[in-house]
Amino acid sequence: MIRVDYAHLLETLYLALHRAGLSEEAAQRCAAIHADSTRDGIQSHGIGRIPRFIDYVARGWVDITAEPSVVQRLGAIEVLDGQRGIGVLNAMHATERAMTLARESGVGIVAMRNTTHWMRGGSYGWKAAEQGFAAMMWTNTESCMPAWGATSQGIGNNPLVMAVPREKGPLVLDMAMSQFSYGRLKSARLKGEQLPVDGGFDANGELSRDPGAIEATRRLLPTGYWKGSGLAILLDALAAMLSQGRPSFEIDQVKQGSGTGCCQVFILFDPAQLGGKAACGAMSDGIAEHLAATTPIDERQTVRYPGESTLARRRASHERGVEVDSALWDEVCELAGVS
Amino acid sequence: MIRVDYAHLLETLYLALHRAGLSEEAAQRCAAIHADSTRDGIQSHGIGRIPRFIDYVARGWVDITAEPSVVQRLGAIEVLDGQRGIGVLNAMHATERAMTLARESGVGIVAMRNTTHWMRGGSYGWKAAEQGFAAMMWTNTESCMPAWGATSQGIGNNPLVMAVPREKGPLVLDMAMSQFSYGRLKSARLKGEQLPVDGGFDANGELSRDPGAIEATRRLLPTGYWKGSGLAILLDALAAMLSQGRPSFEIDQVKQGSGTGCCQVFILFDPAQLGGKAACGAMSDGIAEHLAATTPIDERQTVRYPGESTLARRRASHERGVEVDSALWDEVCELAGVS
Repeated sequence: MIRVDYAHLLETLYLALHRAGLSEEAAQRCAAIHADSTRDGIQSHGIGRIPRFIDYVARGWVDITAEPSVVQRLGAIEVLDGQRGIGVLNAMHATERAMTLARESGVGIVAMRNTTHWMRGGSYGWKAAEQGFAAMMWTNTESCMPAWGATSQGIGNNPLVMAVPREKGPLVLDMAMSQFSYGRLKSARLKGEQLPVDGGFDANGELSRDPGAIEATRRLLPTGYWKGSGLAILLDALAAMLSQGRPSFEIDQVKQGSGTGCCQVFILFDPAQLGGKAACGAMSDGIAEHLAATTPIDERQTVRYPGESTLARRRASHERGVEVDSALWDEVCELAGVS
Repeated sequence: MIRVDYAHLLETLYLALHRAGLSEEAAQRCAAIHADSTRDGIQSHGIGRIPRFIDYVARGWVDITAEPSVVQRLGAIEVLDGQRGIGVLNAMHATERAMTLARESGVGIVAMRNTTHWMRGGSYGWKAAEQGFAAMMWTNTESCMPAWGATSQGIGNNPLVMAVPREKGPLVLDMAMSQFSYGRLKSARLKGEQLPVDGGFDANGELSRDPGAIEATRRLLPTGYWKGSGLAILLDALAAMLSQGRPSFEIDQVKQGSGTGCCQVFILFDPAQLGGKAACGAMSDGIAEHLAATTPIDERQTVRYPGESTLARRRASHERGVEVDSALWDEVCELAGVS
């Protein structure tokens, strides 16, 4: 790991994306989203996705000139077709549209079909919360794990994001439906580490903490066993219904890398119209303070609310530089033509 | 276990509820919801809750004459105060109001504060789906498990329900945020069984499958460890914000049994206005068929969609009678004055 100054990271990502063919504006906006994810400690879905994204652009799997088109407007709901454009820009556009709708109606719902990978889902939850909105967002994906009771791939890991604003730092949850991602398995394997809890099944069909054994079977464990499996299925169905798009098993047929052709939902609420910002803030403060007052397992730590460690990491990144894997940094510098 | 004819079960529950002071109409509607839950295999939140509910009524913790009042109307959103009325009737009213709003606007959102236990959350998901609506619903509760990283109670188990309609049987998920309920721990302990996976922590702070050891510490495990913990926190915050009601830590202060003073959210969508009922049905069929075509761990079974086993149980109950614990049946018969 090396530490890179945030501005330098942003500029390098911009150069790599611009060189890949994105317009100046698109490259700037994309670079900011990936730089922020990396700064927040989510390297895997920040700078870590840049080489693969550029590869997808080169293959024509992401259309860098496409803009979302309106499929349907129905009161507080807007259905968009992402036209397989740039996933992070599509998702940010959807978030902004949902904010506009929520300002008008108290709630704003954007369902987008036929888009591409939104990278770190938390990006849109943080955006919404920082602008004062509460949010519930999710995406479906191609099948990447077996449903509970199955051995073959059948469900997506369909990340779910929720956010509630709070002045001292919003409550933000960003969770996939697998207990661990393939990225986490790979990183544990490279370090020679076992997972802290079971993460999937080994070749004998036994629950396992061995990342390599799970990578070999591709039998990722849904979070909470049958519960995460069921939640993944329902999030998939509801996203496909609302966006009038593809459920996971049809995304599987697109065969253009990870996430291409997926559906996303953005449900935003405006607390200013529902009891007021101050009441929402006091309630969120109360929850954070209540958690901090519970008894920790490790007495050197306090019990954290979702989003708390992200904010701490963000501050550290701005103060001391953003942590980036050194081989990955070299690869991205090369893509940026600055190596 | 004994088997009771559905009509006899319904009549007995009606008699018990009417005897507890509920009006004829309220007792009939309540009895139907509890009979249906029991018929669907959820005895714990069906007939199993009748003695406790009647006790709460006797203590004045549930106001059997209260009706929900309107706090706010804002487009497709309605905020209600449940006035600590009968939880299942409040929740069914909220579901029906959300259907009306969804028929008008494509989406209908009811947030209800200050209500009482909705018993089986799935009741409202099934209701919505059977009427052709897709749904996302949840409740907060008093604190009943430690947040991830804590040893003391800090979060509710905040059940989440999702449903998508399908003619051959809707996709319906009904999940709490604890891996197992206290009811499930008790029933495993009484049978002398271990849990199939870890369900909490024992007195040594180790993850455990021993139901009695977990009951002793009250350190229930959130489903998916940190993930279910985070989801419980965000569901709590969003429910409290939307309904302008109490988050879990404030419900704790009510001290009137389980669920009293809680907040619930009902988000319903009308597929007829979003791509059409036929397209929604075809998509749901596709998901169910896709799952059934994946390779099962146990080759004597097919991989099921959420809701499939409930429907099978429902059919069996109507054909062969509803399974009820015999001591519980005697207790309810006595409450009904028919023992």
